[in-house]
Amino acid sequence: MTDTFGVRLRDRIQTLGPLCVGVDPSRRQLTLWERGDDISGLEFFSLAMLEASMGLAAAIKPQVAYFERFGSAGFRVLERLLSDARDARVLIVADAKRGDIGSTNEGYAEAWLTPGSPLAADALTVTPYLGIDTMAPLVTTAAATARGLFVVVASSNDEGRVVQEARIDDERRVEDVLLERIAEWNRADEDLGTVGVVFGATRDRPRFDLAHVNGPFLVPGVGEQGATPEHVARLFSGVPTSSLLVNVSRAIAGAGPDPRSVRDAVARWRDDLARALP
Amino acid sequence: MTDTFGVRLRDRIQTLGPLCVGVDPSRRQLTLWERGDDISGLEFFSLAMLEASMGLAAAIKPQVAYFERFGSAGFRVLERLLSDARDARVLIVADAKRGDIGSTNEGYAEAWLTPGSPLAADALTVTPYLGIDTMAPLVTTAAATARGLFVVVASSNDEGRVVQEARIDDERRVEDVLLERIAEWNRADEDLGTVGVVFGATRDRPRFDLAHVNGPFLVPGVGEQGATPEHVARLFSGVPTSSLLVNVSRAIAGAGPDPRSVRDAVARWRDDLARALP
Repeated sequence: MTDTFGVRLRDRIQTLGPLCVGVDPSRRQLTLWERGDDISGLEFFSLAMLEASMGLAAAIKPQVAYFERFGSAGFRVLERLLSDARDARVLIVADAKRGDIGSTNEGYAEAWLTPGSPLAADALTVTPYLGIDTMAPLVTTAAATARGLFVVVASSNDEGRVVQEARIDDERRVEDVLLERIAEWNRADEDLGTVGVVFGATRDRPRFDLAHVNGPFLVPGVGEQGATPEHVARLFSGVPTSSLLVNVSRAIAGAGPDPRSVRDAVARWRDDLARALP
Repeated sequence: MTDTFGVRLRDRIQTLGPLCVGVDPSRRQLTLWERGDDISGLEFFSLAMLEASMGLAAAIKPQVAYFERFGSAGFRVLERLLSDARDARVLIVADAKRGDIGSTNEGYAEAWLTPGSPLAADALTVTPYLGIDTMAPLVTTAAATARGLFVVVASSNDEGRVVQEARIDDERRVEDVLLERIAEWNRADEDLGTVGVVFGATRDRPRFDLAHVNGPFLVPGVGEQGATPEHVARLFSGVPTSSLLVNVSRAIAGAGPDPRSVRDAVARWRDDLARALP
């Protein structure tokens, strides 16, 4: 039987460390790499970032918005990237921030979490504005297909606080109630759970103890957004390092376009993270 | 100069009434139409729903999740639907519920709101979990390209309340703060504004007066989800009918697969809405 996503991710982090390389082919980034803002530039950048990550990073995280800019042709490039990453045994977190009512979320589960789907990834990021329990079909599919979810609980940008820190009652904020429910879902797993959490390195510790979530954390905000590996270590003290996936995007891609420089940047971030998160 | 989205939408609603036909090619729906759950079934259903809506409905609303199930091939079908709808002068609301940090939202704005993009629609639905002001790049692009946004403020499903009705302070909930900000954005428009609101017909009136939003409303929840045209009339009393777009999906598609039955269902819903919302 296939290992669950939690087990596969933890194994990968124990072997390679917690680095997740963000693949963000924005117009600005393709221009910085002196490529056209077109399908050919998109493909070149994406495959180069995958290549630079192989054997050094636990996962890559393509930002789907930047592929979607090119419509179906952009999704064909994303499919190529997903397929190449699978062949290279690099875990993929599709950063799509999908989220809708339950019946619609079944559609997203079919798209991103179902074997044989052209967009099948190891894990998908989702947003909970339409409710917590609307994510149940995604959780069910992820568990059945040994894939994972990362629910955005606290994003790395400050503007997120207005919704994420709104009060549910005297004691709990939206982020706390989400963490509670995710911890419940993860009780179904003996090992590191199926339902992960996006929690920005730039944020404060929530009231709910992050060590009780029992799922993996995807941590944005490190590098260009201002947080350091030391911030991550402080925020997640008490959480096993083997459940942390720390994303770095622009601070790595910014070393390009020379492939050796990009790979050096990946190795440097891997080492910095290993020092801060032993 | 091209009319703004608000003006175009209001004209269409004044001519054809407030009906928006949801195009939801879920597996269940394609099976009910005795079609394969494949690209050919997807295309047949989508184009049939467009055909049934022509001249009777103000807009169609394809649910993007159900196209995304098929990866790039599904997006090719969506591009065909968008292109055919443009030719038929049917307004399109792409129901994608996109939403991320600001820089990523620029990618979604390029995808859905920029002329020449294969996925360019008249309007896009977005979710605000990552913050209200992260939507600014989408608002700016929509205003510049005479397209629109519909921000999910209050969804039709009950599970949405936990986040949407969380308290910001003693007086305001998340939904109120969103409506305030949207009303501010719409002050830039002389006429019906660029930034619309998704507000479920199944919900209660918020504290913020809906009549002060000055943007269009996209109203889900009517039909299979239990609300009636009369619920819509009560919830939006004080709001001009010409700014209401009332979505009906399964209750129309359920009349198929016979094309005449589907078109009859569209006409019946148009008439029912016209009676309740004169």
